[in-house]
Amino acid sequence: MVTDGLPLVDQHCHGVRAEDVDRAGFERLLTEAAEVPAHRSTFDSLLGLAVRRWCAPALDLPPHAPAEAYLARRGELGWREVSRRLLSATGTAAWLVDTGLTPFPITAPAELAGLAGGAGYEVVRLEAVAERVAASGAGAAELPGAVLDAVCAAARRAVGLKSVVAYRAGLALPAEPPAEGEVRTAAGRWLAVGGRLTDPVLLAWLVHQGARLGAERGLPLQLHTGFGDPDLRLHRADPALLTDFLAATRRLGGTVVLLHCWPYHRNAAYLAHVFGHVRLDVGLAVPYVGTRADAVLAELFELAPFGALCYASDGFGLPELHHLGALLWRRGLGRLLDRWLAEDVLTAADAERIAIAVTSGNAASAYPLAG
Amino acid sequence: MVTDGLPLVDQHCHGVRAEDVDRAGFERLLTEAAEVPAHRSTFDSLLGLAVRRWCAPALDLPPHAPAEAYLARRGELGWREVSRRLLSATGTAAWLVDTGLTPFPITAPAELAGLAGGAGYEVVRLEAVAERVAASGAGAAELPGAVLDAVCAAARRAVGLKSVVAYRAGLALPAEPPAEGEVRTAAGRWLAVGGRLTDPVLLAWLVHQGARLGAERGLPLQLHTGFGDPDLRLHRADPALLTDFLAATRRLGGTVVLLHCWPYHRNAAYLAHVFGHVRLDVGLAVPYVGTRADAVLAELFELAPFGALCYASDGFGLPELHHLGALLWRRGLGRLLDRWLAEDVLTAADAERIAIAVTSGNAASAYPLAG
Amino acid sequence: MVTDGLPLVDQHCHGVRAEDVDRAGFERLLTEAAEVPAHRSTFDSLLGLAVRRWCAPALDLPPHAPAEAYLARRGELGWREVSRRLLSATGTAAWLVDTGLTPFPITAPAELAGLAGGAGYEVVRLEAVAERVAASGAGAAELPGAVLDAVCAAARRAVGLKSVVAYRAGLALPAEPPAEGEVRTAAGRWLAVGGRLTDPVLLAWLVHQGARLGAERGLPLQLHTGFGDPDLRLHRADPALLTDFLAATRRLGGTVVLLHCWPYHRNAAYLAHVFGHVRLDVGLAVPYVGTRADAVLAELFELAPFGALCYASDGFGLPELHHLGALLWRRGLGRLLDRWLAEDVLTAADAERIAIAVTSGNAASAYPLAG
Repeated sequence: MVTDGLPLVDQHCHGVRAEDVDRAGFERLLTEAAEVPAHRSTFDSLLGLAVRRWCAPALDLPPHAPAEAYLARRGELGWREVSRRLLSATGTAAWLVDTGLTPFPITAPAELAGLAGGAGYEVVRLEAVAERVAASGAGAAELPGAVLDAVCAAARRAVGLKSVVAYRAGLALPAEPPAEGEVRTAAGRWLAVGGRLTDPVLLAWLVHQGARLGAERGLPLQLHTGFGDPDLRLHRADPALLTDFLAATRRLGGTVVLLHCWPYHRNAAYLAHVFGHVRLDVGLAVPYVGTRADAVLAELFELAPFGALCYASDGFGLPELHHLGALLWRRGLGRLLDRWLAEDVLTAADAERIAIAVTSGNAASAYPLAG
Repeated sequence: MVTDGLPLVDQHCHGVRAEDVDRAGFERLLTEAAEVPAHRSTFDSLLGLAVRRWCAPALDLPPHAPAEAYLARRGELGWREVSRRLLSATGTAAWLVDTGLTPFPITAPAELAGLAGGAGYEVVRLEAVAERVAASGAGAAELPGAVLDAVCAAARRAVGLKSVVAYRAGLALPAEPPAEGEVRTAAGRWLAVGGRLTDPVLLAWLVHQGARLGAERGLPLQLHTGFGDPDLRLHRADPALLTDFLAATRRLGGTVVLLHCWPYHRNAAYLAHVFGHVRLDVGLAVPYVGTRADAVLAELFELAPFGALCYASDGFGLPELHHLGALLWRRGLGRLLDRWLAEDVLTAADAERIAIAVTSGNAASAYPLAG
Repeated sequence: MVTDGLPLVDQHCHGVRAEDVDRAGFERLLTEAAEVPAHRSTFDSLLGLAVRRWCAPALDLPPHAPAEAYLARRGELGWREVSRRLLSATGTAAWLVDTGLTPFPITAPAELAGLAGGAGYEVVRLEAVAERVAASGAGAAELPGAVLDAVCAAARRAVGLKSVVAYRAGLALPAEPPAEGEVRTAAGRWLAVGGRLTDPVLLAWLVHQGARLGAERGLPLQLHTGFGDPDLRLHRADPALLTDFLAATRRLGGTVVLLHCWPYHRNAAYLAHVFGHVRLDVGLAVPYVGTRADAVLAELFELAPFGALCYASDGFGLPELHHLGALLWRRGLGRLLDRWLAEDVLTAADAERIAIAVTSGNAASAYPLAG
């Protein structure tokens, strides 16, 4: 396939869990659900089939090994060796790691890259920074400034910014950032109760600041869109709701990246078509949709400019997710391009150029990666 | 195919019209439109093609017999013999029959099963119960209690509850049921005008009560979602709108079933993925989409847990719909699993296990069926 | 293929740019984006691939000729010869031309037909008429009447009316037209500022008048839905939002045509299924989605009555768009029907009947075309 051997830039993933897990722990990481009910196994899904089909051989098991055998072998090898094998097989040259989600011991970017090969980079999650500042005892009046300072400090060692406003307040962001007074009032409200940042005014302000700072510093702003977190309201994570925000930020000179997008990936492709500063991926969907990766990709290609599509695994916790993200993307894209070649839709040179762009080139030109 | 010979549990259907119909009558039942305009025949659709392709042979006609020949032969055999043939060929072991929609003489569950083979069960439509109670002369103060009593009485002989709130008020149900005072006020408003129950407060209360009673009695609560009734506003029947309601009912211990779902079946699959108490089908869509059944199913499988997918025909009025629901589901699923087998996505044992689960096992474990 | 040689009725397109364009000008017309950023070429898309694959041979170049060679040859031949070749190869018998969008010299319907062969007809854009009347100095009190008069005058030489309310105020139109007083007040507001008509009250009034006048005069009312203009909010262009309007206009005796529809083409198909006066196309999507035309068409066919589907290119500016709209529709439809024939979904006679209906018959019966 035309995608064989091409290095990947994984523009959005997380670390792997840095400890061994039992079956329940594994299954909880093999789903976006908050919990796994007793009557279900998360192996009973296209993702679970893909783990058994594709990851088992990397652990010296036959393809389609049963879940029990897979987990037993995983336990024998230990999380570090399993991660080393599954991650290094992806052929990933650069890992852009969102460091803002750490509910258990998780590898830092350099540690992930150490296991995997390639280089590790950090993507700063804006809400995590704001929550750290709020927890540090800042008052309402100084909070906005302190958050900006902290974002700028974090941005110095990062290659991108990220927001999860999609599952905190939804994507219907205003075209203009809220006024200073409103932000201060909202900050006071938040500090009075603390906890997760869910205030829509503060979030809108934060995302606008992220777009501005990102543009100034050459750091793309990644936005979670579509499915993913069990907290979200799917219809409020439709990237089409971002249109006002995207129209307002198109002149800033920065890049906005729509992550995940499924099942609204056609809507996201439309946005990338009309807004030149938008890039997108279907990370998380690939690997979750397993063998359906090429079907989802085909829908994405309908309107997305070839220069806007990027690869991401959104792997989190389990290196199986990074592995399948890479393998199913490479295979799905390869199958799609091979079919188009066979049907004389494009030339071999076109296919190669597209494959390189969407596996690494588009991301490499958007993020300030080394080398 | 791996699905050959597997018995089906049809988790949601209606009876068949218990009288002969002329061409106009047949065509009106071969569509979800409220009326068939003079310039159209409802045979001119993928559903119509499927009737001619698959139902004609069951009536001793060649495949693709013209509509006229089909209807003539149908008239010769009479509704009872036609129903017997088409229903019994489905291989359905259990029919779960919504008894709340009876605009003409229609077979009761036992009568349907008598024609078809298999066992008939009742699903109680909550809105129909409430409308019967309201028509019986209850006052506003006693209406809520009387409705609950009537639902409980009906539930004693039923295996499930059903709500059509989707096309009465839409699916954006509140997380909490409305307060008692609100419900009484709404009851007064409704009783003053009578007719169909469309009051959003009463409907929200009724659906919440259905979830609670269903959980207590082991009866799944079925919710119409997606396309179906010409009265609905499609975008208000998006199952994603149910997220607050599903998050609020996940701890009750019951099951919520999303019916139909098309064209939001990917959204429904996401909900079944994140909420362990959710099951779903694409009844009505299959049979309506005809030869596209496997394409729709493939999209459904992207995120739906294998343990959440159920079969339903949503056949209503015409036994052709039950027949095609079963045949196209069995064939579509079989083609999909066969393709995945050929592509080494899963093993033959996996395919068989999935086929059994989604044709009967998942429904059999959710509903209190006999035997 | 069953579609070979069938004449087309292009129920919605625009003229071609009546002057030569340089590369930047060409690329700007090969996208729905308002501008092409420096780092992108609009050739890098499925549409761009299709231009190189299918239009290059019409200009005596090999398939897949590079963009540079294509544009150089285009320059040699000149816009008139290029248009003559690309348009006449479509096999279009009738061009229904929206004359309301003229940002540069553009061919009038007769001029387009003169280059292309076939007959040219006019479709009147309601907003353009209203803006002309407003610019002519009418006062608020007489504006509504003057607009109606102007629409009636324009309608005399037209075969259809068209509204772009989708990207002015969105498709959530009220079931009833606004009251006279409201309309006059809104007219006053608009005239005070002038410019593009974006007032939701005036637009709702205008579209309702268009439905009424169209029904009286036998002129279908075309509504832009789904993607297209960079100004739109995609989610507000979901045709499902039109349900109240469609329910309210079904008794008028006219036809409402949903244009484009992608990515909401399944929603549009549902509307055509339940409302007998609705027709639809996926113009603009075909040609934009290139080789994915048959996949999009297959989704459209799931629920759309065969009698409701029409062909349109929505070609604008570049004759390449008209050419590919026709070629990819003919080919996509042909491939779909051929596959269904091979799979015994329908008979050859069915396939031929469907092909004729959706390439020309349905449009020919809806619009008052000559001959």
